[in-house]
Amino acid sequence: MRIETDSIGPKALPCSAYYGIHSLRARENFPLSSDNLHPILIKKIAQIKLAAAKVNAQTNQLSLKRSEAIIAACTEIILGNFHTEFIVPAIQGGAGTSANMNANEVIANLALEKLGFEKGSYKRLHPNDHVNMSQSTNDVFPTAGKLTFLELLLPLKKNLTLLIQCFQQKALESRGILKMARTQLQDAVPTTGDRMFDAYAQLIRRELKRIELAEKELHILNLGGTAIGNSINATKAYVQNIIPELSKVTGEDLVPALDLVDATQNLDGFMQLSHSLKGLAISLSKISNDLRLLSSGPTAGLQEIMLPKRQAGSSIMPGKVNPVIPEVISQVAYHVIGTDTTVTMAVEAGQLELNAFEPIIFHDLFQSIELLTQATQIFRTHCIEGIVFNEEHCQQMLESSPVLAVVLAPHIGYERASKLVQKAHHSGKTIPELLTEELHYSPEEIKKILIQSHYPEKTSAQM
Amino acid sequence: MRIETDSIGPKALPCSAYYGIHSLRARENFPLSSDNLHPILIKKIAQIKLAAAKVNAQTNQLSLKRSEAIIAACTEIILGNFHTEFIVPAIQGGAGTSANMNANEVIANLALEKLGFEKGSYKRLHPNDHVNMSQSTNDVFPTAGKLTFLELLLPLKKNLTLLIQCFQQKALESRGILKMARTQLQDAVPTTGDRMFDAYAQLIRRELKRIELAEKELHILNLGGTAIGNSINATKAYVQNIIPELSKVTGEDLVPALDLVDATQNLDGFMQLSHSLKGLAISLSKISNDLRLLSSGPTAGLQEIMLPKRQAGSSIMPGKVNPVIPEVISQVAYHVIGTDTTVTMAVEAGQLELNAFEPIIFHDLFQSIELLTQATQIFRTHCIEGIVFNEEHCQQMLESSPVLAVVLAPHIGYERASKLVQKAHHSGKTIPELLTEELHYSPEEIKKILIQSHYPEKTSAQM
Amino acid sequence: MRIETDSIGPKALPCSAYYGIHSLRARENFPLSSDNLHPILIKKIAQIKLAAAKVNAQTNQLSLKRSEAIIAACTEIILGNFHTEFIVPAIQGGAGTSANMNANEVIANLALEKLGFEKGSYKRLHPNDHVNMSQSTNDVFPTAGKLTFLELLLPLKKNLTLLIQCFQQKALESRGILKMARTQLQDAVPTTGDRMFDAYAQLIRRELKRIELAEKELHILNLGGTAIGNSINATKAYVQNIIPELSKVTGEDLVPALDLVDATQNLDGFMQLSHSLKGLAISLSKISNDLRLLSSGPTAGLQEIMLPKRQAGSSIMPGKVNPVIPEVISQVAYHVIGTDTTVTMAVEAGQLELNAFEPIIFHDLFQSIELLTQATQIFRTHCIEGIVFNEEHCQQMLESSPVLAVVLAPHIGYERASKLVQKAHHSGKTIPELLTEELHYSPEEIKKILIQSHYPEKTSAQM
Amino acid sequence: MRIETDSIGPKALPCSAYYGIHSLRARENFPLSSDNLHPILIKKIAQIKLAAAKVNAQTNQLSLKRSEAIIAACTEIILGNFHTEFIVPAIQGGAGTSANMNANEVIANLALEKLGFEKGSYKRLHPNDHVNMSQSTNDVFPTAGKLTFLELLLPLKKNLTLLIQCFQQKALESRGILKMARTQLQDAVPTTGDRMFDAYAQLIRRELKRIELAEKELHILNLGGTAIGNSINATKAYVQNIIPELSKVTGEDLVPALDLVDATQNLDGFMQLSHSLKGLAISLSKISNDLRLLSSGPTAGLQEIMLPKRQAGSSIMPGKVNPVIPEVISQVAYHVIGTDTTVTMAVEAGQLELNAFEPIIFHDLFQSIELLTQATQIFRTHCIEGIVFNEEHCQQMLESSPVLAVVLAPHIGYERASKLVQKAHHSGKTIPELLTEELHYSPEEIKKILIQSHYPEKTSAQM
Repeated sequence: MRIETDSIGPKALPCSAYYGIHSLRARENFPLSSDNLHPILIKKIAQIKLAAAKVNAQTNQLSLKRSEAIIAACTEIILGNFHTEFIVPAIQGGAGTSANMNANEVIANLALEKLGFEKGSYKRLHPNDHVNMSQSTNDVFPTAGKLTFLELLLPLKKNLTLLIQCFQQKALESRGILKMARTQLQDAVPTTGDRMFDAYAQLIRRELKRIELAEKELHILNLGGTAIGNSINATKAYVQNIIPELSKVTGEDLVPALDLVDATQNLDGFMQLSHSLKGLAISLSKISNDLRLLSSGPTAGLQEIMLPKRQAGSSIMPGKVNPVIPEVISQVAYHVIGTDTTVTMAVEAGQLELNAFEPIIFHDLFQSIELLTQATQIFRTHCIEGIVFNEEHCQQMLESSPVLAVVLAPHIGYERASKLVQKAHHSGKTIPELLTEELHYSPEEIKKILIQSHYPEKTSAQM
Repeated sequence: MRIETDSIGPKALPCSAYYGIHSLRARENFPLSSDNLHPILIKKIAQIKLAAAKVNAQTNQLSLKRSEAIIAACTEIILGNFHTEFIVPAIQGGAGTSANMNANEVIANLALEKLGFEKGSYKRLHPNDHVNMSQSTNDVFPTAGKLTFLELLLPLKKNLTLLIQCFQQKALESRGILKMARTQLQDAVPTTGDRMFDAYAQLIRRELKRIELAEKELHILNLGGTAIGNSINATKAYVQNIIPELSKVTGEDLVPALDLVDATQNLDGFMQLSHSLKGLAISLSKISNDLRLLSSGPTAGLQEIMLPKRQAGSSIMPGKVNPVIPEVISQVAYHVIGTDTTVTMAVEAGQLELNAFEPIIFHDLFQSIELLTQATQIFRTHCIEGIVFNEEHCQQMLESSPVLAVVLAPHIGYERASKLVQKAHHSGKTIPELLTEELHYSPEEIKKILIQSHYPEKTSAQM
Repeated sequence: MRIETDSIGPKALPCSAYYGIHSLRARENFPLSSDNLHPILIKKIAQIKLAAAKVNAQTNQLSLKRSEAIIAACTEIILGNFHTEFIVPAIQGGAGTSANMNANEVIANLALEKLGFEKGSYKRLHPNDHVNMSQSTNDVFPTAGKLTFLELLLPLKKNLTLLIQCFQQKALESRGILKMARTQLQDAVPTTGDRMFDAYAQLIRRELKRIELAEKELHILNLGGTAIGNSINATKAYVQNIIPELSKVTGEDLVPALDLVDATQNLDGFMQLSHSLKGLAISLSKISNDLRLLSSGPTAGLQEIMLPKRQAGSSIMPGKVNPVIPEVISQVAYHVIGTDTTVTMAVEAGQLELNAFEPIIFHDLFQSIELLTQATQIFRTHCIEGIVFNEEHCQQMLESSPVLAVVLAPHIGYERASKLVQKAHHSGKTIPELLTEELHYSPEEIKKILIQSHYPEKTSAQM
Repeated sequence: MRIETDSIGPKALPCSAYYGIHSLRARENFPLSSDNLHPILIKKIAQIKLAAAKVNAQTNQLSLKRSEAIIAACTEIILGNFHTEFIVPAIQGGAGTSANMNANEVIANLALEKLGFEKGSYKRLHPNDHVNMSQSTNDVFPTAGKLTFLELLLPLKKNLTLLIQCFQQKALESRGILKMARTQLQDAVPTTGDRMFDAYAQLIRRELKRIELAEKELHILNLGGTAIGNSINATKAYVQNIIPELSKVTGEDLVPALDLVDATQNLDGFMQLSHSLKGLAISLSKISNDLRLLSSGPTAGLQEIMLPKRQAGSSIMPGKVNPVIPEVISQVAYHVIGTDTTVTMAVEAGQLELNAFEPIIFHDLFQSIELLTQATQIFRTHCIEGIVFNEEHCQQMLESSPVLAVVLAPHIGYERASKLVQKAHHSGKTIPELLTEELHYSPEEIKKILIQSHYPEKTSAQM
């Protein structure tokens, strides 16, 4: 065991531990759940520390030797090594101080070893004085959070693009499949299958656009602002160079906030991100609800579409198959919507020069993004791609409905259309049948009339 | 009394009533609150009906005589007359059908009178066949809602601009007022009064920008899509001309949605609007909370600032004055945040080709915007403008704090700074006093050091 | 005009005004909406002032003459007079101080007139010294709020009881109507109409019970605690007698809180009330959603039930009738659920010895209760009472479904049941038809089997 | 590998797998997060299966041999073995079917081995026919969820009881410590330290009581109702005996629901549970906010109390210590409040005879309870127990405040009190100093007056 000491007192640590006293205290303070820091967050903190060490050396604040050792240590962590040394829980008090301290300690001890010193010999290279040089938790932690979001959003955006394409492909496949449109769940007018999928594609396209807008703001950083945004303890040269350097390290196009004080105390950018995820969740749930409705049955439901059968649906009713994928999509949506409430309260709770509640915001939003990423993937591959229309049943429901009269009226006159409806009601025959019998329309002509009414030329517009 | 009849049966109406049977049924069906349709919403429906009557005449669907009579009737309503004839409650079932029907009936009867016919003689001019020609509730009602939002947002945006300017003005006035910055409510480092107000200005500027983004989408309409977005019952010529005509009538730059089916069934644009209002509410509440904290006292609080005294604060404690304006701002914020939950559930509840829950979305969001408009006005005039710093007290708190050492260290060395702190602690003297006594710094030099540390040149960035 | 002066300065008031300077300032301070104090809240404040005047006289704090004048003034207000003198807005800063001040002023001036003095001659009888004697806003306002809730809950509870009875009546009427039960919207097993209504009755019964639990807590008051609950400025005799006196005045069985300090600063009782209303809203919305689903059609939906036709449903599709009552119920539910978010934030925002955010809690919860009261009324009278089953269609859907086999298996054996299902699938005949043809079951026997499976003897349990 | 087949088709499984085809499909269908079924939930399902096997044997539905094998298999799982065979994700579509199927398969294969058969030889003992006999997912899964809640609530309730005791102990320790009470963050009247802690104790006591009310309802089960609550596929004898048997197995006092159909489709009981947890979260956050406020400083804050120092607070500001425990408590509270939104949407989304969204409700509420359990533990041990008042500072703030006059007025007369306040203001002396100088009160007499005013005899009341 080695002993480390802080302002609270001394504490024994395992000799093998790269983490230090601050990390251990935090671990003991916050035994709330088994969730550790997200591995990408760890990587991003290391990237920031690496960039800072570079700039601190360039601006002659840090010796080249120390800088190189810190850079080598950070590189290990960026490669995914030593993540088990990050022992502070994800849900923690203190605005991320513990996460930042844990990184400082692990990097310092790794660097010390690289320099040939023992772990804990902080006089040679100090977690706070050297690894954390020119930084504060209050600019490092939100920056690392933003970079993590940027990386997590990539697969989500990709899955959304694929989902949009999938809806478009299904629209192409469903062109001309006639079916009932329902408003307020009541039979309205005829529509076609492609209309439905096109509308879903458009909806998700807008949600993607909103996520991209929120994402754009995540590139604006308060790094260099240190404790409260007035760059105390950082040189002007450092402040000017750190974000360009971090851009190089991460490959992201990062910019400093116009007002670092504002950017340090206000978390509205994370609120906007949460709003965009909540918006997506709502839209996914709406589509899921539609699909569950349209696939209801098989006998006593709407049965317009069939979802791919993914698993047996009942431990007691043989042959029952349930819409399990839309069901799980809605559940993910509810979770994401709930997280927005959490983020709302956390963002509103900021006080004066800092908002101390970033840890729960990060933890919960990371989870929301990852859930949505997986959900949009399985929604596409396990459900949407395999949807098949019950064309015949769709057509039967339409043909037996008086709403056909609305479409026919311009062709055969309102009065004749009304009479056909009444006749259909009394005779039990469908309107198309009567149309053929009495007015000698062929089934092809009837279908043409119905379909034509659904493809007026599209208007041009912009979102 | 006159008798009108619909598919449910006959019903007596007062002879003087311009509204008709559908309106009366709706009034009886939804006796939920005393809130009627918003007057701007009524005006906007009339503008849509006017534009439609014009285009229907131009495209030879409607006789010029009827068109002119309808236009004259709509003009009356746009001028604010006959609003008491709009008797359907704001909170209503039916996706706005009752609101649209009420407008159709009032306009029809006003037009009938202008043509010299009796109210109710719908064979001459029919609420549905002529006033509602080429339209459906499902494209008229959301369009009217969007136009109402556009009008209601104008004063809110103006008040936000004024609030931002006010914060900037206060920043100018507060330049160089030294005070303690607090992170996690613990003394952190020195800051200045202008920093605080600048950060508030930036924050509200971003919220305004988000509202403007949401507002932009409100210009995209599904008008012309009729019942489900496939333009059933509307001619191609009407669909092409109605939105340009409505742009002329309203003076707004309106465009048709790319996909009218999507635009009819999905209310994500209202969700985004609600998100932008919720974001603003959260930020206003954060600022209000700060102001209440900073003005706490007068003896046993932070007492850094004094808010304008607006009213006696207690029925029992003489002389007590409370921060009533920030308190009411937070309450408005909570209400607006609550409304977002309502809108979330309503938007998620859309089914298939329509979302039937627009009435509550409109009612509640209209109220949110109006509350925020008033709240941002009184926040500025009744509170922010009159804020005064207790400069002396701010300075005292700063001077008696060891955090000064952080700022002095680069000037006098870390070790000497630490010793001063310890000496201050034991002697009861302040650090500046000791600095003068022992190191012969003048008060002006000390202040200069403190202030300099707060004005690094601003970085340039973009939001 | 008369001039009144407070710690802020002098202010002119109309001579006719019974309200005073504090009321006028508040009206100018909070021009947020046109909502005034709820009339029942005004009445309840007057009842408290009346009870206090009585006890203050009994305990020799207040002269009999002044006490009687105050009592007479309060009586007027309780009878509904002078409510227009209550000019302070419902949404106000200051924890209700303005509402309490407004009452003090109106009552003082009314009492002065009764004593033969001019309005404003507060030396004779003072709003704070005499009308507010032994009280503080911080005990009067929450007490008045609780009493208002108690009165507002009466009609809601009555309507819930009627709704439960209505569901039970419908269950009686629907006994033996066979229909498909659906789990996850997929055909499951047969059920009967009464089962559905019985379940709704049980659900609402539980929600009523939860409201009654929340209501019970509302009888526990902090009156007598004055400013922070330590009864400063009130005599022990007053504290002991005020709540018994208020019980007499109001007819409610009121009790003092065990710990008045706790009862003054914590609003968890209003949170619980809001939770009970939110619970009711969720359950009402679930039922509404069911009814909209089951009445979907008329051709291309489930069409198991018909809701009473309340109004024409479309301005464009003739004959369409929509489920407008369930739709408006869900909208009210969303509003009430949103209000719970508002209350959550307001209750969480309490600080130290007081929660200043009661005005928005009261305003929004009063509205929620009134909306629910009306909603449950029209739900019953405009919708539930008139629901009719499409018995034949229900039976057809059931008979054509393979799920019948599940029920038949115990009677004819699993293997024979499976074969019947397959045969039905290939022949297009229904299972009952085949059962009659091949196994000579009469339709009566078949129905008996189906129904029997649904009425196992009920188990006895308690909620 | 062994091959199993279901209605979708055949699938290869590892020979060593106790889980079967349904489990594997579910695992592939729902790759949403790494969270597996909660170990207590697994145990509870096994307890239900064990009880069912017993009753099925007693009622001659199941051979004794099979029953004994199933019981032995369940016992293993209850002891904590074979939990890695539960491979279905916690967040899953299908109302818990996958969880139930997974249990059926693991138990069947374990039982088969005990009987000397190979895994997968389901003709001997079938997951659905024998392990799931007389059951359905729709009664097993909610029952298991309720039993899990009951077990998870035990440590939470214990920690709440300890927290209440801790607050009471602190109240005893703080008796007579004079300090300022603040309403709306403005100085109000004097109070004492014990008042504060007593109020917290009362508040948490009420929250505990509400949790216990919700817990009581969790004892009411729909077990025996099978698929939709009408006990299809279960004998009357089984229905009568299963819940008494489960009570024996679990040691809980369980009762059947009055209406099993209602109990199967409505999840309002989980909503109530979530409400009670949300209520607790709000109250914990209120207390945390108070403690952060009161410990603000050390120089420029209220500094009335000192929280135990748990860790260094800054990577940049030496000596700074933050209120990390209250901060993390609030974050947990925000998370729990967010979960209530999730549960709200999930409960509202129930349709007809079932609510399919239990998996997310269980997953998120299990997490909420566990977080609250840990949070209340560390709140007590890491924070509340070690709180110390800065008595001297509290007294100084009080003595320099004019609010003292309110307390002194009854003793020295209002006029003399007012004059003392004015004199104190001008002279810079405190009121107690002047009281001693001018009116010859000893410090002891003054303190007596102040304290007396805070201990009126407590009123008796009931919650």
